[in-house]
Amino acid sequence: MAVLIECVPNFSEGRNKEIIEAIVDEVRKVKGVKLLDYSSDEDHNRTVVTYIGDTDSIKIATYNLIKKASELIDMSIHKGGHPRMGATDVIPFIPISDITMDECVAVAKEVGKKIGDELDIPVYLYEEAATADYRKNLADVRRGQYEGFFDKIKRPEWKPDFGPDVMNVKSGATAISARVPLVAFNVNLGTNELAIADKIARTVRFAGGGLRFVKAMGVMLEERDIVQVSMNLVNYEKTAIYRAYEMIKMEAMRYGVSVIGTEVIGLLPMKALIDCAEYYLQIENFSIDQVLEKRIVE
Amino acid sequence: MAVLIECVPNFSEGRNKEIIEAIVDEVRKVKGVKLLDYSSDEDHNRTVVTYIGDTDSIKIATYNLIKKASELIDMSIHKGGHPRMGATDVIPFIPISDITMDECVAVAKEVGKKIGDELDIPVYLYEEAATADYRKNLADVRRGQYEGFFDKIKRPEWKPDFGPDVMNVKSGATAISARVPLVAFNVNLGTNELAIADKIARTVRFAGGGLRFVKAMGVMLEERDIVQVSMNLVNYEKTAIYRAYEMIKMEAMRYGVSVIGTEVIGLLPMKALIDCAEYYLQIENFSIDQVLEKRIVE
Repeated sequence: MAVLIECVPNFSEGRNKEIIEAIVDEVRKVKGVKLLDYSSDEDHNRTVVTYIGDTDSIKIATYNLIKKASELIDMSIHKGGHPRMGATDVIPFIPISDITMDECVAVAKEVGKKIGDELDIPVYLYEEAATADYRKNLADVRRGQYEGFFDKIKRPEWKPDFGPDVMNVKSGATAISARVPLVAFNVNLGTNELAIADKIARTVRFAGGGLRFVKAMGVMLEERDIVQVSMNLVNYEKTAIYRAYEMIKMEAMRYGVSVIGTEVIGLLPMKALIDCAEYYLQIENFSIDQVLEKRIVE
Repeated sequence: MAVLIECVPNFSEGRNKEIIEAIVDEVRKVKGVKLLDYSSDEDHNRTVVTYIGDTDSIKIATYNLIKKASELIDMSIHKGGHPRMGATDVIPFIPISDITMDECVAVAKEVGKKIGDELDIPVYLYEEAATADYRKNLADVRRGQYEGFFDKIKRPEWKPDFGPDVMNVKSGATAISARVPLVAFNVNLGTNELAIADKIARTVRFAGGGLRFVKAMGVMLEERDIVQVSMNLVNYEKTAIYRAYEMIKMEAMRYGVSVIGTEVIGLLPMKALIDCAEYYLQIENFSIDQVLEKRIVE
């Protein structure tokens, strides 16, 4: 299969349809990139766009989107419920197929540098692309938001990685990085006692001494009158779906409760499921290149 | 993901590298088609080519390959160990992604008609594309081989589906069809007693009262000093991998033997493994469109 990178930029406009469409159009225009989804939140006044493509195409589409956002969005008059520091607020690149995290970090840096140089926007690298530990967490980078950045940017420890050392009044500042894909995986239990789902969630999640890359909480599904352990698997390669699933099944047993089904919410990479088939079927020496769809038409 | 059809034509030349390369080149030349593999057998004097592509591209590549084979191969002087009736002997189209079996049958018919009309080669539809039950089995269609077809073709029940009612002396006749992909899946047992693998193979396979779409036999793996149940799953959608696997595990128990590993040989469609993940993880309402790689760049 060809190289496939996913990009999920968030930009600070969730109300004006004309502006939103004009920005999303920049993705539609680039051959080699496919728009998967975009959704706007009026309260947050923010839009999240999802697209995939090869390395070169995704760089072009992302730069064009950011450029268009810098032309059409004026951060000096932006109001919205979600924390934000720029017109294009945050840009994560996600390795999907035939590409490493390091290569996605390189893409983030290249696009970040171009935004800084050509659009005069201060750029911060975070998470996998961060240049220092204290810059890894997006919440730390963004703290103070657009309004606070006019001062924050002057502090030496918050000197931008690329672009000018002063705020761009119209476009604000932008955070760019690479991260692994999230898998949203929920496990439904044969009980309506929320306390049981809560207890299991606490056991399985990282915060409670459970699996490193699992975030989990108990949720009541009123309509079906059952409870659910709702999870975000933030690194499915290191904490595989089947491991979280089997652990929940095991924990549920102590309450005499069984797993009655599970759900995958939204998209996930093929490998996240194929890893599970490999485990359960005990497949030796399997290579993802044995999957026909990996041999995609060029 | 885009429409993806696999095609695995067999042509009657396995010795002359120049001819083989010239024929395979016809596949390489077509944009939208990717050559996955080709392998020649000198004893059989036969070459098997594997490629994938979208509907239009695969029709073009396949027609061009057949045309080139008809120009370069002379069946009147062909000798080889494998049964054959034509320069391009057999052409199966296999639905891989976003395409139905019926649509692949339509592709087989369209290409078959074009070969008959333009290359003057008698064409037989078999398996899923067969126009009568007695023509379904390729072995029945091909019986008599090239040499016998000069008479066989005159019998009303063996009138070709397309092309002339007389043999093409140089190119012979061709069989064309659509079929489901095979999955070659082997299960290794923690014993070196071949009799146990044989008994389990007989239980799991269709011929022995087992699963409808499973062919199986016991095999000794000398180097590892273990035995194996070697299987061809000829319809993984109707007889899923996990079902064959679990049945073997269950049967092995009666001999006090455990499954120590499995192997997938060659290529298989993503769905064959994802179906297994769905089963073991009890995923409700999963759609293959939730797999990121299905959303391929156009």
